[in-house]
Amino acid sequence: MENNRIDKIGNYEMLAEPFHVDFNGELTLGVLGNHLLNCASFHSADRGFGIASLNEEDYTWVLSRLAIEILEMPKEYEKFTIQTWVENVYKLFTDRNFVILNQNGKEVGYARSIWAMINMKDRKPANLLELHGDEIENYILNKSCPIDKPSRIKVEATNPTEILTAKYCDIDINGHVNSIRYIEHILDLFPKSLYESKRIKRFEMAYVAESYYGDQLFFYQNEIEDNHYNIEIKKDNQDTVCRSKVIFK
Amino acid sequence: MENNRIDKIGNYEMLAEPFHVDFNGELTLGVLGNHLLNCASFHSADRGFGIASLNEEDYTWVLSRLAIEILEMPKEYEKFTIQTWVENVYKLFTDRNFVILNQNGKEVGYARSIWAMINMKDRKPANLLELHGDEIENYILNKSCPIDKPSRIKVEATNPTEILTAKYCDIDINGHVNSIRYIEHILDLFPKSLYESKRIKRFEMAYVAESYYGDQLFFYQNEIEDNHYNIEIKKDNQDTVCRSKVIFK
Repeated sequence: MENNRIDKIGNYEMLAEPFHVDFNGELTLGVLGNHLLNCASFHSADRGFGIASLNEEDYTWVLSRLAIEILEMPKEYEKFTIQTWVENVYKLFTDRNFVILNQNGKEVGYARSIWAMINMKDRKPANLLELHGDEIENYILNKSCPIDKPSRIKVEATNPTEILTAKYCDIDINGHVNSIRYIEHILDLFPKSLYESKRIKRFEMAYVAESYYGDQLFFYQNEIEDNHYNIEIKKDNQDTVCRSKVIFK
Repeated sequence: MENNRIDKIGNYEMLAEPFHVDFNGELTLGVLGNHLLNCASFHSADRGFGIASLNEEDYTWVLSRLAIEILEMPKEYEKFTIQTWVENVYKLFTDRNFVILNQNGKEVGYARSIWAMINMKDRKPANLLELHGDEIENYILNKSCPIDKPSRIKVEATNPTEILTAKYCDIDINGHVNSIRYIEHILDLFPKSLYESKRIKRFEMAYVAESYYGDQLFFYQNEIEDNHYNIEIKKDNQDTVCRSKVIFK
């Protein structure tokens, strides 16, 4: 099989839909996250590593980390392009990067993601190199992504700033609260006044455990320094579900 | 200008994305609503009546009613097509219909919508026939839609079943709670157990007034008969924002 650079990079054209922009007329970060994960899904499916083909073998992809940096968010009705590629494959994880291009082809955002493959029967991580090493390695592209890797996120707050119950629209086909809904609930922690004067520069998610319909989600939030917030979501006020870092500029 | 049937019907291809399906693996009604409104927007923009061209003249479209009936919801990763056309133009309203086709071209859903055009300066309704009658009439297609028109919705409940505060992700570019978010909040009123055994057969929205960031939304709900719910949302427990009818099967 010939593997050229073009084939290794997935290229997906998007439009900032009217109900997907915020009051500033700019794409919301939750919707951008949805687009990124879709592109990951299309890109891997086109290359034979999609959820559907893995499921036949009882495996699935699980998103572990996501970091997004935005220079300029697409505005309502603007077209933009997401490119994605696999940068590395390790035993238990794979690194997938993204670049967001505006309609003039200018790079206006970047993202990094880290995925594990798990066995759906025992939920244990699979050894990527043993299972699919040769084939996935064909798709590795030695193209870096100019943003920092996802970092360690520490939250020390002792009082929750928000408590939500997971509802119908939060739940995905696996019965879990979906990865995008966490992002939206976290964006909703910040007041409109903050979004009036500032923009999100960097956003990170570390997905730690699943939560389910009816779970009470407790949001703990620290302002680490000016414009820099760390957030932790615990289900039923006990187990950590995810952690997030939000940096405004 | 020649106006053939093909040109009068807009035809939009869609895919049921993984984060847009519910725990049954079926497209959520909020996402379908978003697609319908997008198609309305694309269809009118392509014919010179889009929001952008109206805004130049200080006018905009306002969605007044939406009724959706579903025979079979598209499933995860399924392709489907939305067709839309204008059935009638009256002095103050226009009727826009939709049909949803599955990947085999079978009709699996229908929708009706009613729109007003308002002047953005005084928020008063515009006379469609005087302003754009001749041009819009060119696009009228005498093709009916096999579902009932939106009905009158009466809610008599005196205690709210839910109270929510409008947050950042609820707000659209106009500073209003967006039309789709109301649908999602209404879907979230029903327990997962109901969606496990039943499906939404018909869903109606009557958009009455706008609500804004920080408004407290009070949800009143009546079970009119088996599987038939009427819902009213009041802002700050006073003015009606919208009413909805949800019929399960």
